[in-house]
Amino acid sequence: MTDAAPTPPEETYSYLGPAGTFTEAALKQVAAASGKHWRGVNNVGEALADVTSGRSTAAMIAIENSVDGGVSATQDALATVPGLRILGEYLVPVNFVLVARPGTALADVRVVNAHPVAYAQSRGWLERELPNHGHIPATSNVSAAASLFEGSQADAAVAPPGITDHLDVDVLARDIGDNPNAVTRFVLVSRSRELPEPTGADKTSLIVELPDDEPGALLAMLEQFSTRGVNLSLIQSRPIGDALGRYRFVVDVDGHIADERVADALLGLRRTSPNVIFLGSYPRADEQTVAYHSKYDDGIFIEARDWLRGLLSGEPD
Amino acid sequence: MTDAAPTPPEETYSYLGPAGTFTEAALKQVAAASGKHWRGVNNVGEALADVTSGRSTAAMIAIENSVDGGVSATQDALATVPGLRILGEYLVPVNFVLVARPGTALADVRVVNAHPVAYAQSRGWLERELPNHGHIPATSNVSAAASLFEGSQADAAVAPPGITDHLDVDVLARDIGDNPNAVTRFVLVSRSRELPEPTGADKTSLIVELPDDEPGALLAMLEQFSTRGVNLSLIQSRPIGDALGRYRFVVDVDGHIADERVADALLGLRRTSPNVIFLGSYPRADEQTVAYHSKYDDGIFIEARDWLRGLLSGEPD
Amino acid sequence: MTDAAPTPPEETYSYLGPAGTFTEAALKQVAAASGKHWRGVNNVGEALADVTSGRSTAAMIAIENSVDGGVSATQDALATVPGLRILGEYLVPVNFVLVARPGTALADVRVVNAHPVAYAQSRGWLERELPNHGHIPATSNVSAAASLFEGSQADAAVAPPGITDHLDVDVLARDIGDNPNAVTRFVLVSRSRELPEPTGADKTSLIVELPDDEPGALLAMLEQFSTRGVNLSLIQSRPIGDALGRYRFVVDVDGHIADERVADALLGLRRTSPNVIFLGSYPRADEQTVAYHSKYDDGIFIEARDWLRGLLSGEPD
Amino acid sequence: MTDAAPTPPEETYSYLGPAGTFTEAALKQVAAASGKHWRGVNNVGEALADVTSGRSTAAMIAIENSVDGGVSATQDALATVPGLRILGEYLVPVNFVLVARPGTALADVRVVNAHPVAYAQSRGWLERELPNHGHIPATSNVSAAASLFEGSQADAAVAPPGITDHLDVDVLARDIGDNPNAVTRFVLVSRSRELPEPTGADKTSLIVELPDDEPGALLAMLEQFSTRGVNLSLIQSRPIGDALGRYRFVVDVDGHIADERVADALLGLRRTSPNVIFLGSYPRADEQTVAYHSKYDDGIFIEARDWLRGLLSGEPD
Repeated sequence: MTDAAPTPPEETYSYLGPAGTFTEAALKQVAAASGKHWRGVNNVGEALADVTSGRSTAAMIAIENSVDGGVSATQDALATVPGLRILGEYLVPVNFVLVARPGTALADVRVVNAHPVAYAQSRGWLERELPNHGHIPATSNVSAAASLFEGSQADAAVAPPGITDHLDVDVLARDIGDNPNAVTRFVLVSRSRELPEPTGADKTSLIVELPDDEPGALLAMLEQFSTRGVNLSLIQSRPIGDALGRYRFVVDVDGHIADERVADALLGLRRTSPNVIFLGSYPRADEQTVAYHSKYDDGIFIEARDWLRGLLSGEPD
Repeated sequence: MTDAAPTPPEETYSYLGPAGTFTEAALKQVAAASGKHWRGVNNVGEALADVTSGRSTAAMIAIENSVDGGVSATQDALATVPGLRILGEYLVPVNFVLVARPGTALADVRVVNAHPVAYAQSRGWLERELPNHGHIPATSNVSAAASLFEGSQADAAVAPPGITDHLDVDVLARDIGDNPNAVTRFVLVSRSRELPEPTGADKTSLIVELPDDEPGALLAMLEQFSTRGVNLSLIQSRPIGDALGRYRFVVDVDGHIADERVADALLGLRRTSPNVIFLGSYPRADEQTVAYHSKYDDGIFIEARDWLRGLLSGEPD
Repeated sequence: MTDAAPTPPEETYSYLGPAGTFTEAALKQVAAASGKHWRGVNNVGEALADVTSGRSTAAMIAIENSVDGGVSATQDALATVPGLRILGEYLVPVNFVLVARPGTALADVRVVNAHPVAYAQSRGWLERELPNHGHIPATSNVSAAASLFEGSQADAAVAPPGITDHLDVDVLARDIGDNPNAVTRFVLVSRSRELPEPTGADKTSLIVELPDDEPGALLAMLEQFSTRGVNLSLIQSRPIGDALGRYRFVVDVDGHIADERVADALLGLRRTSPNVIFLGSYPRADEQTVAYHSKYDDGIFIEARDWLRGLLSGEPD
Repeated sequence: MTDAAPTPPEETYSYLGPAGTFTEAALKQVAAASGKHWRGVNNVGEALADVTSGRSTAAMIAIENSVDGGVSATQDALATVPGLRILGEYLVPVNFVLVARPGTALADVRVVNAHPVAYAQSRGWLERELPNHGHIPATSNVSAAASLFEGSQADAAVAPPGITDHLDVDVLARDIGDNPNAVTRFVLVSRSRELPEPTGADKTSLIVELPDDEPGALLAMLEQFSTRGVNLSLIQSRPIGDALGRYRFVVDVDGHIADERVADALLGLRRTSPNVIFLGSYPRADEQTVAYHSKYDDGIFIEARDWLRGLLSGEPD
């Protein structure tokens, strides 16, 4: 770390707790976090506050789900909390089990406790198998199950498979998610200014605002990438929040800021956008090497700069 | 209506109930719905099912919030439920009151019942005024308040201002929303194939899928609009849901399908997209006339077609 | 012909004469001209005047040379003489011989008569073999040779190979052109409004003016083609002639106006350009089938129009 | 001059001679050439050979005419002779007089000697006033008149107005050019690597080849300029000469290579083109300040580079 914020006495990682959540499963994939202090928090805001205050080294937060799309709270927080950087991304398959207090049979279930997103993703199964069930919303996937022991009116809960490590529940059904390939993407966020080394299989995350009242501004932004052969893997609009019709864009592109084509696209973006937030360049979770046309090789950019420098300095051709 | 579905015996309008919701406030803006049967439902899915089954003439559903962005459930439903058309859009200012059972004082409030979106939008106020409160999520803004009389552990609820017409509650605080300009956009959806008449202040809503694995496909889509002088007022990506990285786009453009420039852009879209869903052309809620360059006037398109027809038929110049 | 102009009593074809020119060689490729009256004229202006006045059925004129580029006089005439249509294109390899009055030896040649273009294209040979020669310019390749018998001070002339069919000259050297692959493209021009049938290997010629003072107007013009997958095989600017910096563009594109993608691009051009001149769609001289992406097939355009018509007329999806 | 070529013993300027040509009129506009040795040559090739061999300091050559368009010989020479740089541009109004040996009356003129371009530009007047005249082509405007004293069969010659300073001729008619606003643009060419200082009213000349067989390559080239707000004042295609359909582009853009937006566009061009020839940045003859949007100001480019550098070096935001 190159800035002056206090290093926490012990390395701490914040995540959406309690133990058993998908976010914890993501954090388990981080080698550097192994054996360090893990701090379960209640929401994205707390996780990021831990990072900005220096209480935690880094925080794991969900950023996108293959079924539900971008996690708005995360995207909005990254756009508004200054000084954050993404160090890496992690994929966690999302599946659900239906759990109950020991001794409960599936036939007895009338009311189900579930986080709204988990409920939405299991709804097909629930409506087929429990056509007359009622739903009580929960604040997290784990608290849905925990509430069974805290006087909830629910008979069962939708929970992550790892719940049985933490709670004494019976699993009434497995794989109740409607989409067997559902996956959630998490990012590890810190205040570090150091860039992870380029690996050839990298991703760069940005948040870009467009100039006001300029028709074609989005087109112009996309051209900054296409004219450098940089592919977008994600583009999402989020309301800036002050009025209908004003958006910022959350963008992921293939490649690392240390790649010339990406750096040049960033220059173009910076020039045309009233606000560009660089969230980081980091290895892709899928480790897939970024493919691009050889005309966007680093050497091409370097040669062109040398040529221009020669022209400006009056060197003979 | 030009199709064969049964007209409901009495004209019925579905909306997210119960009485008192913002959705009801939107429906109150629809002149044609006045005096008809209104049917409160639990969620967007039920509202649209009422329309597709012919049980309701139309349904009012929230589609976008100036603070939270697009309503994912609505956008996804419009993308997957066939045969729907938007007849009009309606704006409702979003503000909140904190209510409690009669006789409760603000100082007594420890637990607050609130729909997650309402909670997020009031969070600044709640954390400032009730720093130690707990939160119980509710399924709707009205049910949050209703639960106060149904044995909830909550002492207060976040609710729409109109709640006092329906429930005997005390208002502990007004205007607790963090953003005083927050507004939600609703759309009235039916199965009708008839297009609302162009007014000069219209909007056209589309859902567009892009061809797979074609870098620049989003750019090419936007060019279909920009080369016809058609401005986008909304573009949002939503996951198709089968895998990370596959998106469809929810798009609103200025103008009516009966405008030549919009129709021509739709032709271009249809040719380049594997799937374009036309959700309707309808008057803008803000009644603002659509401005566009005179080179995209209807007459220009008609003259060009006449010229081409003359060339193809061998007429003298 | 669909218009009222008088058909010449006998079918007549005009060409840059006299007999022996490359233009005559091009006209010999036209099956329909075989056995008809051929009229040698002095320049492009006379040839086109023959056509517009109805004196000739058609005229053969040079339009482009692989070494010298577009023939300005032809391009400007096609831009300003109304009512002309190109019926076909013809390629003639361009090579030259050095000829002299019978009995002249190469060593005796001090002054060479040559049309300026022929002189430019043979200059390498002439400077190598006749380093001290002088040059007298001629008005055509054939008149250069003919002048040898009309008191010219020249000892030799640069001429087309066919000259020996018409004049009693000795050939002092063959293949003296600097570029052995040089070729000139000719077009056959008439007033007919009938379009040659599409063959799948067609070309469409246009002259396009751009709107004044609109930066990006050329880019916008090119996008009309690129967004429909239409390839340009030629683009040349010509001064409009009233001031420096004002240009029109001579454009050849792959495909026939009866191809949907070409027709749609023409519509777009017509809408954005203050003046588009359609010069004709006709078979390519090289008979090479036009390749294009299947997403620009005729069927795609027709289906999109049917879809739009259905939306506008209120048909069920 | 920064290279090692021998400086001519006396400063010499080459131009298309003899004295009296329009090219001489252009050279008279060059302050630095005043009082130096002027060398009249026969054509563009000789003029440029004088420069590359070091025999002359610079050469004045015609590059574009408002009526005839680009001067092909000049454009092709600049594309193929290496090491040349344009130092400045000069405009000369083009008008013509009809001259004859003293004592000749207009009514006596039957044959007119004229350079083909001058003849083309005076043709309207000649056909109106001398309907039965014949034409003998000349190699230059001055030699057309000179030939009257060298045994030519012509009775009169088309010549520049300045001819009377050099030859004892009678002027039979003035202002016989068909276009009263005709103007020719000349450029002064040297081997110097020093760039003229930016003035705010500059022009940059380039020759650009496009990658083979890449549809959309021209569009991509133009986007390099448009995305940096750089306006093109000239674009002309010239055949590369090896085959039909292969072109290079002669391009003039508004601005100086020392302007950040122009430099950045050059970088983009260099990266995408197999060959870019920088012909120079120099003051515009019309001294008109280049207008461009403030978002392309130098400061914007510099700030973006600083920002990128900060990100790459790990500085705190």
